[in-house]
Amino acid sequence: MHDMPQTERCRTAIETSRHFREEVPDVVEKLVASCGAGTCFDHIGPEPIPSREAVIDLIHRINRLLYPGYFIRTRIEDFNLRYYFGQEATALFELLSEQITLAMRHDCVRHNLPCIQCEEQGQKAAISFMHELPNLRAVLATDIRAAFEGDPAAKGYDEIIFSYPGLLAVTIYRIAHRFFEQSVPLIPRIMSEHAHSVTGIDIHPSAHIGESFFIDHGTGVVVGETTEIGDRVRVYQGVTLGALSLPRNEVERLRTRKRHPTIEDDVIIYSGATILGGETVIGARSVIGGNVWLTESVPPDTRVYLKKPDLIYIGGTR
Amino acid sequence: MHDMPQTERCRTAIETSRHFREEVPDVVEKLVASCGAGTCFDHIGPEPIPSREAVIDLIHRINRLLYPGYFIRTRIEDFNLRYYFGQEATALFELLSEQITLAMRHDCVRHNLPCIQCEEQGQKAAISFMHELPNLRAVLATDIRAAFEGDPAAKGYDEIIFSYPGLLAVTIYRIAHRFFEQSVPLIPRIMSEHAHSVTGIDIHPSAHIGESFFIDHGTGVVVGETTEIGDRVRVYQGVTLGALSLPRNEVERLRTRKRHPTIEDDVIIYSGATILGGETVIGARSVIGGNVWLTESVPPDTRVYLKKPDLIYIGGTR
Amino acid sequence: MHDMPQTERCRTAIETSRHFREEVPDVVEKLVASCGAGTCFDHIGPEPIPSREAVIDLIHRINRLLYPGYFIRTRIEDFNLRYYFGQEATALFELLSEQITLAMRHDCVRHNLPCIQCEEQGQKAAISFMHELPNLRAVLATDIRAAFEGDPAAKGYDEIIFSYPGLLAVTIYRIAHRFFEQSVPLIPRIMSEHAHSVTGIDIHPSAHIGESFFIDHGTGVVVGETTEIGDRVRVYQGVTLGALSLPRNEVERLRTRKRHPTIEDDVIIYSGATILGGETVIGARSVIGGNVWLTESVPPDTRVYLKKPDLIYIGGTR
Repeated sequence: MHDMPQTERCRTAIETSRHFREEVPDVVEKLVASCGAGTCFDHIGPEPIPSREAVIDLIHRINRLLYPGYFIRTRIEDFNLRYYFGQEATALFELLSEQITLAMRHDCVRHNLPCIQCEEQGQKAAISFMHELPNLRAVLATDIRAAFEGDPAAKGYDEIIFSYPGLLAVTIYRIAHRFFEQSVPLIPRIMSEHAHSVTGIDIHPSAHIGESFFIDHGTGVVVGETTEIGDRVRVYQGVTLGALSLPRNEVERLRTRKRHPTIEDDVIIYSGATILGGETVIGARSVIGGNVWLTESVPPDTRVYLKKPDLIYIGGTR
Repeated sequence: MHDMPQTERCRTAIETSRHFREEVPDVVEKLVASCGAGTCFDHIGPEPIPSREAVIDLIHRINRLLYPGYFIRTRIEDFNLRYYFGQEATALFELLSEQITLAMRHDCVRHNLPCIQCEEQGQKAAISFMHELPNLRAVLATDIRAAFEGDPAAKGYDEIIFSYPGLLAVTIYRIAHRFFEQSVPLIPRIMSEHAHSVTGIDIHPSAHIGESFFIDHGTGVVVGETTEIGDRVRVYQGVTLGALSLPRNEVERLRTRKRHPTIEDDVIIYSGATILGGETVIGARSVIGGNVWLTESVPPDTRVYLKKPDLIYIGGTR
Repeated sequence: MHDMPQTERCRTAIETSRHFREEVPDVVEKLVASCGAGTCFDHIGPEPIPSREAVIDLIHRINRLLYPGYFIRTRIEDFNLRYYFGQEATALFELLSEQITLAMRHDCVRHNLPCIQCEEQGQKAAISFMHELPNLRAVLATDIRAAFEGDPAAKGYDEIIFSYPGLLAVTIYRIAHRFFEQSVPLIPRIMSEHAHSVTGIDIHPSAHIGESFFIDHGTGVVVGETTEIGDRVRVYQGVTLGALSLPRNEVERLRTRKRHPTIEDDVIIYSGATILGGETVIGARSVIGGNVWLTESVPPDTRVYLKKPDLIYIGGTR
C-alpha cells in the first residue's frame, strides 16, 4: 500500500471502513436473537428496575445528612442549617421514594403479584428511613469515637470522617441494614457492594452489629449474612466472619440457616483471623490473634493465639 | 500583622500572593527540563495513545450490551429492543475502533514499524470482538447460574448481576481475554486493572478460565498470567493462583514460561489458599481448604486441609 | 383498593403521597436538634474545610504533571510542551493553594489559634511542593523500572504507568508524604485513603520509603505510620508492616512512638507475610517467604520461610 497514489489509498481506506461498519447490523440481529433464546440474562419489559447509579447517589445524599458540613463545598452555619437540611431532606424523600418503589415493583413483577400499592409503600419506607436519621447519627458517633480510641495514628475526628474506609463501610452498612429491616429488596445489597468496592470491606446488610464498632485498615474483611456482633468490637484487615464449607447441593437448604458466627461485646480480632460457623460464639472481652483459624466457640475473657510457627532461617548470622 | 491598617494588610497579602505565583514559571522550566533528561517517563510526540478514561467507558458500554436493561435508566421493551442494540452497537463500533487503533499505532511506533494499516486493523478487531458478544452473553449466563448455586446468601439473579463483584470481575476478564486473544495491545491490561480496582480481584487477561466460574467475596484474589482453570470452579476471597518466587535476574527468562498453576474441572478453593507454580495441577473435583499453601500437584477427588493449627488459649474458662 | 373507581383511587394516591411528604419537616427539625445535642459530629460554622472531591481532583492534576502525555486525551509534542506545563502548573498552583489554606485554617480554628497567615502559608506550601515535582518524577522513574524488572508479566513501561495499582499507590504515597513533610494537615491522609480505595494498598503518608519500590498485585498491603523502608524493596499482595497488638488504654501513649518495622535495602517480602513491631528490623537483602509471621528482627542476607505446614489429604490417589 506504500506505493499507491494518495487518492487511491484514501478510497481504499474509506471502503475498508465501510465494509466493517456494514457488519454492525449483523451483530445487532445476533444480539436480538440472544435475548429470545432464554439462556441469557436481560431485563426487558415495561417495568423499570432500580438504577445502580441512582442508588449510589442516594448513599452520597444520605451521607451529607449524616455528616452535615463534611461532604459539601458550601458553608453551613447556624443561620442556614435548617434551610440546608430542609432542601436536602426534600430532595432525598423524592429520590428515595422513587428507587424504593422501583425495587418493590420489580419484586412484585418477579413474584407475579399485583403492585397496586408499591408507590405508597415506597414513600412510606422512605419517610420511615428518614425518621431514623438522627438515631443513625448517634450510633455513628459511637463508631467515630471507637476509631479515635482504637487507632494511635488518628490525629482527630475530622480525619476519620473524611478518610477512614472502616467508617465509610460501617456507615453504608448501617444505612443498608435499616433498609434491610424494612424489607426493601435489592437496594441494601447494591449499597453494601458499593461499600465493598470502595473500601474492600464486605459487610452483608443483614448482619447485626452493635455500637462503637471499629474496623482498622479493613481491606479483605468479610462479615457474612447471619453474623451477630456485640458492642465495642474491634476488627482488623483481612478478618473473615464466615460460613463453614458448603457441600454442593446443600446450598438451598442453608439459605435460611444461621451460618456465621456470634461475636460478643468488647472482642478484638486481629488481622487475617478467620472465624467460621453459625454455632461459633466468641465470648465477651476475648482477643483473637492474627491469622488464627477458629471453627469452635471460645469462652469469655480468653486470648487465643497461634503457636509460634516453625520458621526456617537460611543464611544470615544470628 | 494584627496591628497593620486594613489597606496595608491587603497590599501585603496581594504582594505575597504575587511573589509565590511568580515562581510558577520556574517550576514550568524545571518540568520541561526534566522531560529532556531521559531519566523520567513521558509520552511526548505526534502519536496519541489510548485513553484510560475512554477504555473504562468502553467497559460500561460493552456491559450495557451484555446485560441489556440492567445498567440503563430507560426502559427496554420488545418493540424497541432492536433500536436499543442498534444505537449502542453503532456507537460502540466507532469508539472501540478508535481506541484499538490508538493502541496498535502506539505499539507500531514503539517497535519502529510502519503503521499504514492500524486503522483498518482496529476496525477489524472491533467488529470481530462485537460478533463474539452473543457468545460472551451465553458464557456469562453460566457464571451467573454458578453464583446463584454457590452462594446461599443470593436472593436472585438480578442481585448478582447488579452487585456481585465476582461477576463484574469475571465479566471484565472475559472481555479483556477476548481482546488479548486478538493481540490487541495495552487495552486488555487497562481493563483488567480497572476490574482489580473496583473489585479487589486481579485476573490477568491472558489466563484461561472455563465456564460456570464463581468467585465469592473476592477481595484479594490473584489469578496470574499463565493460570489455566477448568469448568465449574469456585474460588473464595484471598485466593492466590501465583508464580513461585523469582530469583532476581531470572525475571527476563521467565517472561514466556508457564509460571502459574492449572486447576481442573469442579475444584473448590477456600479463602486465603495459595497455589503456586507452573507445574502444579489441582485434579478435578478436589477441594482445597482455607489458608492451605500448595506448591505441588494434587490428584483428582482429593480434599486438602491444614492440620488443625496449635492454638494457645490464655484465660477464659473452658 | 382493586374495586375503587378510577377517580377515587387517584385521589387516595395523591393524598397518601401528601401525607408522607408532610412528614419531611418533622425529619428536618429532628436533624437540626441532633446537631445541637453535642453527641453527633458535624462541621457547622463560618470556616469551610478542604473538600475531599477537590483533593482527589488535585491528585489527578499532579499525576498529569508527573506523567505528561499519559492521562490526557490531547497530544503533547515538543513545540507545545511548555504551554502544556504552563497551563497545568498555573491551575494547580491556584487550586492547591486554596485547599492547603483551607486545611491550615481548619487546623487553626480547631486549636483556637489566630489564622492571619494561613493564605500566605498555603501558597508557600503549594509552590514549595511544586518545586519538588521534577524530583518526584525522577524517584517515580526508579519505581517504574523496579516494576518492570520485578514482574515477568510486564510487557512495557506504558502498561505499568497506565494500569499498575502498585505504581498508582506509590505515586500517591510520594505526593502525600511530601505534603506530610510540609506539615500540611488533613490533605495527606485524604490522599492516601483515596489510593487505598482505588488500589487496596494502604500506605500511611508518614512512612519512609526509599527509591525503586515495587508492590506487585498489592490488594491488602498495609504499611503503617512509622514504617521505614530502604531502597529496592519488593513487596507482594497482602503484606502487613504493622504494629504489635495494642492493649486498650495504651493507645494514647503510643501515638508518638515508633510502632512499625524497619525494612532495609533489597529485601523481598512475599504475599501474606506479616511483620510487626517498632523494633523489628529486616536486614538488607533478606527474603521473607509467603505467610511468614514475624515479630523479631532478622539479620541481613537471611531467607525466612514457613516450615512446610502439615496438610491432611483425604481421598484421591497419590
